[in-house]
Amino acid sequence: MANDQPLTKEAILEAAEQVLRRYGPEKTSVVDVAKALQVSHGTLYRHFPSKAALREAVTERWLHRIAEPLQELANQLDGSAADRLRTWLQALIQSKRKHVIEDPEMFGMYSAVTLDAVEMIAEHVQHLIGQMTGIIADGMNAKEFRSGEPEVMARAIFFATTRFHHPAHAYEWSTSTIEQEFDLVWELILSGIRN
Amino acid sequence: MANDQPLTKEAILEAAEQVLRRYGPEKTSVVDVAKALQVSHGTLYRHFPSKAALREAVTERWLHRIAEPLQELANQLDGSAADRLRTWLQALIQSKRKHVIEDPEMFGMYSAVTLDAVEMIAEHVQHLIGQMTGIIADGMNAKEFRSGEPEVMARAIFFATTRFHHPAHAYEWSTSTIEQEFDLVWELILSGIRN
Repeated sequence: MANDQPLTKEAILEAAEQVLRRYGPEKTSVVDVAKALQVSHGTLYRHFPSKAALREAVTERWLHRIAEPLQELANQLDGSAADRLRTWLQALIQSKRKHVIEDPEMFGMYSAVTLDAVEMIAEHVQHLIGQMTGIIADGMNAKEFRSGEPEVMARAIFFATTRFHHPAHAYEWSTSTIEQEFDLVWELILSGIRN
Repeated sequence: MANDQPLTKEAILEAAEQVLRRYGPEKTSVVDVAKALQVSHGTLYRHFPSKAALREAVTERWLHRIAEPLQELANQLDGSAADRLRTWLQALIQSKRKHVIEDPEMFGMYSAVTLDAVEMIAEHVQHLIGQMTGIIADGMNAKEFRSGEPEVMARAIFFATTRFHHPAHAYEWSTSTIEQEFDLVWELILSGIRN
C-alpha cells in the first residue's frame, strides 16, 4: 500500500487478513501488519491496541461478509415464505461450508476467536435471527405460517439448525448424509410452523 | 486389585479410567494401567493392544453409562408420548451436563476421542435414536403424534436438539438462557409432531 493513501480501517483489516493467512494466527503480530502496510507500528497501535483487538476486528469483518449477502436474500420477496426461509437457511449453511472448505486455516482461527468473543457472536447471531424474523413475519401475515411471535420462532429455528451452520460441526459437514439430515430437520420445522 | 481375582474387562476399564483421571490422557500409558492392576503389561496388552484401544474402550463404557439409564426411561410407559419424549430429551441433556460439570477433564478426553471414533459414535447415536423411536411410535399409535416414520422423526429430533446435547456445545450450556432456548426448540418440535 502506498504511503500517501489514507490508512482506512478497511485497508488495515485487509492487510491483517493477508498477513494472518500467511503466517498463521499464532505468529502474526501487529508489527507484521504495520510492515505489510508500510506504516509505523505506532500508527497501527492507535487503531488496534493489541493483537487480540486486531484479530477480533478481522473476525468481525468475516462475520459481516457472511451476514451481508444473507441480508440481501432476506429482502427478496419472491416465492412463498417457506421457500424463502429454506433458501435463506441453505445459503447460511453453504456460506459456512464454503469458508471451511476454501479457507480451512482462517476458518479455524475464526472458530477459535468466536469461542472467546461472546458479545461479537451474540450480535452476529442476533443479526441473522433478525433476518429470519422478517421472512417469518411475512409468512405469518400471509397466514402461510401459524400465528406467533416471529422473533421467537426465528430463534427456535436458528437453534434447531445448529448442527448445520455452527463451526463446531464443520467436521460433520463432509459426511454423505448431511444434506439428507438437513432435509429431515427442515421437514420437522416446516411441519411445526406451517398453517 | 488382588492378583488372585480374574482380570475382567470391566476391572481393566475401571482401573484405566482411574489412571486416566489421575495422569490425564496424554501421560497415561498401558503400562501405568498394568501397574495399577498389579499385572504384567504383557497381560494387559493381550486385552488392549494399544493406548488408543484402551482409551476407546474407556470412552465406549462411558457412552454406555449415558445410554443405559435413558433406555430404562424410554421403557417407562406412564404419561403422554409428548411428556415421555420431553423427559427423555431432558435426561439426555442433564446427563451430558452432569458429566461436563462434575468431570470436565474426562469429558474433554471423551469429546476428543469421539471426534476420531466415528463408528463408535454412530452406534451410540443410533442407540439413542432407537430409544426415541420407541416413544414416537407409541405416540403415533395413540394418534397423539401425526403419522409418519417413527425412526425418521426420531433422527430429525435428535439433530434438531444438537445444541443441547452435543459435547461441542458444552461451553454454551452454562449460559443463563440455555433452558429457555431448549424450550423454544421443544415447542417447535412438538408443534411439528403433534396431531
